Amino acid sequence: MAETADNIFKEFREHSVAEFFKKNRQMLGYSGKIRSLTTIIHEYVTNGLDACEDANILPEIHVKIKQLGNDHYQVTVSDNGPGIPKTHVGKVFAQMLAGTKFHRFVQSRGQQGIGASGCTMYGQITTGKPTHITTSAKKGKVYECDIMFDVKNNRADVSHEVDYEGDLKGTLVVAEFKDVTFNWSEYGPGEYLRRTAVANPHARIVFIAPDKQKFIYERVVNILPKKPEPSKPHPRGLTVDDFLDYAHSSKERTIKTFMTKTFDRVSSAKAKEVEGLTSIDFNRKPDSITWKDAEEVVDAIKKVKFLAPSTKELKPIGEKQIEKSILNVLEPDFHQVLTRSPSVYRGGVPFIIEAGIAFGGKAGRRGNGDAKVEVMRFANRAPLLFDAGADVITKTVNNIDWRRYHLKNMDSLPISIIVNITSTYVPYTSAGKQAISDEEEIRKEVTLALQDVGRKIGEHLRREYRKGEKAAKRSTLLRYVPETAGAIATLSGADKKKLELKLLKMVEDKFKNSGKADEEEGDE
Amino acid sequence: MAETADNIFKEFREHSVAEFFKKNRQMLGYSGKIRSLTTIIHEYVTNGLDACEDANILPEIHVKIKQLGNDHYQVTVSDNGPGIPKTHVGKVFAQMLAGTKFHRFVQSRGQQGIGASGCTMYGQITTGKPTHITTSAKKGKVYECDIMFDVKNNRADVSHEVDYEGDLKGTLVVAEFKDVTFNWSEYGPGEYLRRTAVANPHARIVFIAPDKQKFIYERVVNILPKKPEPSKPHPRGLTVDDFLDYAHSSKERTIKTFMTKTFDRVSSAKAKEVEGLTSIDFNRKPDSITWKDAEEVVDAIKKVKFLAPSTKELKPIGEKQIEKSILNVLEPDFHQVLTRSPSVYRGGVPFIIEAGIAFGGKAGRRGNGDAKVEVMRFANRAPLLFDAGADVITKTVNNIDWRRYHLKNMDSLPISIIVNITSTYVPYTSAGKQAISDEEEIRKEVTLALQDVGRKIGEHLRREYRKGEKAAKRSTLLRYVPETAGAIATLSGADKKKLELKLLKMVEDKFKNSGKADEEEGDE
Repeated sequence: MAETADNIFKEFREHSVAEFFKKNRQMLGYSGKIRSLTTIIHEYVTNGLDACEDANILPEIHVKIKQLGNDHYQVTVSDNGPGIPKTHVGKVFAQMLAGTKFHRFVQSRGQQGIGASGCTMYGQITTGKPTHITTSAKKGKVYECDIMFDVKNNRADVSHEVDYEGDLKGTLVVAEFKDVTFNWSEYGPGEYLRRTAVANPHARIVFIAPDKQKFIYERVVNILPKKPEPSKPHPRGLTVDDFLDYAHSSKERTIKTFMTKTFDRVSSAKAKEVEGLTSIDFNRKPDSITWKDAEEVVDAIKKVKFLAPSTKELKPIGEKQIEKSILNVLEPDFHQVLTRSPSVYRGGVPFIIEAGIAFGGKAGRRGNGDAKVEVMRFANRAPLLFDAGADVITKTVNNIDWRRYHLKNMDSLPISIIVNITSTYVPYTSAGKQAISDEEEIRKEVTLALQDVGRKIGEHLRREYRKGEKAAKRSTLLRYVPETAGAIATLSGADKKKLELKLLKMVEDKFKNSGKADEEEGDE
Repeated sequence: MAETADNIFKEFREHSVAEFFKKNRQMLGYSGKIRSLTTIIHEYVTNGLDACEDANILPEIHVKIKQLGNDHYQVTVSDNGPGIPKTHVGKVFAQMLAGTKFHRFVQSRGQQGIGASGCTMYGQITTGKPTHITTSAKKGKVYECDIMFDVKNNRADVSHEVDYEGDLKGTLVVAEFKDVTFNWSEYGPGEYLRRTAVANPHARIVFIAPDKQKFIYERVVNILPKKPEPSKPHPRGLTVDDFLDYAHSSKERTIKTFMTKTFDRVSSAKAKEVEGLTSIDFNRKPDSITWKDAEEVVDAIKKVKFLAPSTKELKPIGEKQIEKSILNVLEPDFHQVLTRSPSVYRGGVPFIIEAGIAFGGKAGRRGNGDAKVEVMRFANRAPLLFDAGADVITKTVNNIDWRRYHLKNMDSLPISIIVNITSTYVPYTSAGKQAISDEEEIRKEVTLALQDVGRKIGEHLRREYRKGEKAAKRSTLLRYVPETAGAIATLSGADKKKLELKLLKMVEDKFKNSGKADEEEGDE
């Protein structure tokens, strides 16, 4: 018999976002024991780095992973940041969709106010234990507490609060987790921190592994990355909905001033140019804009040329900085790096692609056998270890014909390919934040960057190859010098020693000159 | 200069889950114009099918996609379900994490109370227009309204409400979308509905494409799938946290009765067996259980053998039903289907894997050139078109050595491989619900199912191959019969006609017998 709608809808309920993510924790990266542990380290370390940079402090992050039992670990992470005010500790560690960054148009690693709360939840549902926080938000004052997550209400249960005098700097998190495992694979916390060091030469990172091995990645750049500033959205790519949202919340008196004040690269002249392409009077109030008006304006914006987005809010790692950390961490035989000019993708979001290739030394992935090519993906300097197949960077690397750059059998070469995307808003394919979605403009920039470093690596390899060829020729010729000199001496009666010296000089001259010519050719 | 914590935390804000998904809409499947349109069709169609089945009604779903402009479409979807009570229309179409299914342990396509609200949001932010609903939750009474999504507060703005007499059956949704595109690729709405028909032989589906082409997938099974019942969780794989949650919300008077009443396959005897392995008195009240107690119980549960999970709440498609829809939609030369026995993965979640292979006819994917192998993935009968690379089904298909089943050059064969997972809780890798995460138990079941149908297909192919070989031999022999008969007639003086008939019979007898012998061999 058919059921009635009323009967069916008796079961209708509302749920908290924390309940949603408890049930769907794989979306946050909690799937598989190794990935879960790496996710935890990622969340704490990015929070620590962000906290330091927000407060203009050169970061020093200490990570300790201690095994307590089978699939049971204690994680300790500390930073030297500004600390967290007492009133906010609960919200940072046990309230989802709460944070300082979600609503701002600013580049940062953490964006969604979910990460640290996800750790508290995972620790709690696997061990039943709270997360212990020690923090100092005021010089000389230390605050400690235990945090449990009231998932049903998406709120923190704070207990065991203690205040005392002391000189802690920053925040220290200690938490226990079960259903996690540590290993040395490319998906483990060790690799995560190695890559974090590559992308963050201004940070000092100390890692103590469960086997007591200690890794210290020293700071090789003593300058903080440029402080990110909340930026204005660029008009190119703006959606009608976005435009309307901005217009209706604006306090400006005219559409014209609203546009010049709200958007990046919109001068009075540009606003006037846009106005001329519409039927709208830009002296009207911005909150009088209707959907239809907004459609007209957005269409008009597409026909006007604007300067590329301002990049003051973006802080790429920088070519020199990447070079320093590549030399520090990978010690390669040779390398190339490149920072592209800023570009913009859907929604007017500016981004910058940086790429590097390191060859030889400690570059490449080393498992049990020989070195293999490795692709190090980063988003705002945070390493992305998982979901490689779905990522635009991996897809782009696979689509490049590396043989054009003298890189045959790419897979089995000791190469690290490094790509970092810097953006105020990185378009991840999922809340696990491990794969960057395949936006056309991003794919194009990654392709151009990799082709450029690839070309330079190719030139280098070609020179090396020629040098090798010539060295072989030279040594063959040199081998025949004594014999030739002897033969000529016998035939002509000349002095064999002198002939030998002359012949040697001839060979050396030949290779000196042709070597130079080749260098110049290579530099073209 | 270092910034203070107080200064930084001035910017701290809380956000609604709808704001989160507006910003992260790619997580819901809104990435790319084709995928966005398929996502919309998916959300409406699964809601329609679920609504009918919840109310014991054989579903009839009509889908119409009409092009209004460049990247601009109107979508109309209707079902013949029970309708939605007036008070709930707003919540169904414009409130995230609200619904009838999130909290229940029951198999259904939609689970998270996000899908339909996501459509309303996407229509609104791309066109500024409301979603129009017409529904009848009481015989003879029709209710219509417009719905806008108040994203900031995760609430509906309902307007233009009308009540009138009429005899609509079910719910009709009309909405407009921009930034979407229709095409006939394997990722488009057409393919989505073709596959929906394969997995839902009890539904009648009518589709009118933008080019006015009409597709009718007739109902081939007139019985509703078994009604899913909310099920008890199976003890195997239960986490400590889950166990504690259940214990603390139980109203039973003892741990023993709590366990037998709450969990599947836990008899009094089994509860006693578990008790014997712990230091806990099972006559205590369940809400007295501590985390440590729960750990003990969960450890003990792992040592006890329980019956496999009851499957009454799972409704697989069924072998006969899959066969009927394969014949209806794919019209293959031959096919094999299999429904595995139920199994259970992490968390005590029961699931059933069904697999089918269809060869020839309309099977396989046809683009511009020849047919290619296609993998049709389904979760609770809903087709999964995207993120194939991340899906456990695709991974498993790729790991099987199909050559063992006489399937060489698998890629270029006209084959459809069909896999459906039926479960009370499908572990998706993301909120986009397109890839099933790589759970060990699921991978194992999919492998066994595919190996089994593969083996049968292999036997069939071997027989066909032998038949082919024999037919060739037979026709060669038959070709020589007149000549041989003539030669013998000349030599012996016997009658040529008679000789011919005798020789023909010899050849036919030979092939009749060996054919039979081979059949038997094949059936072993």
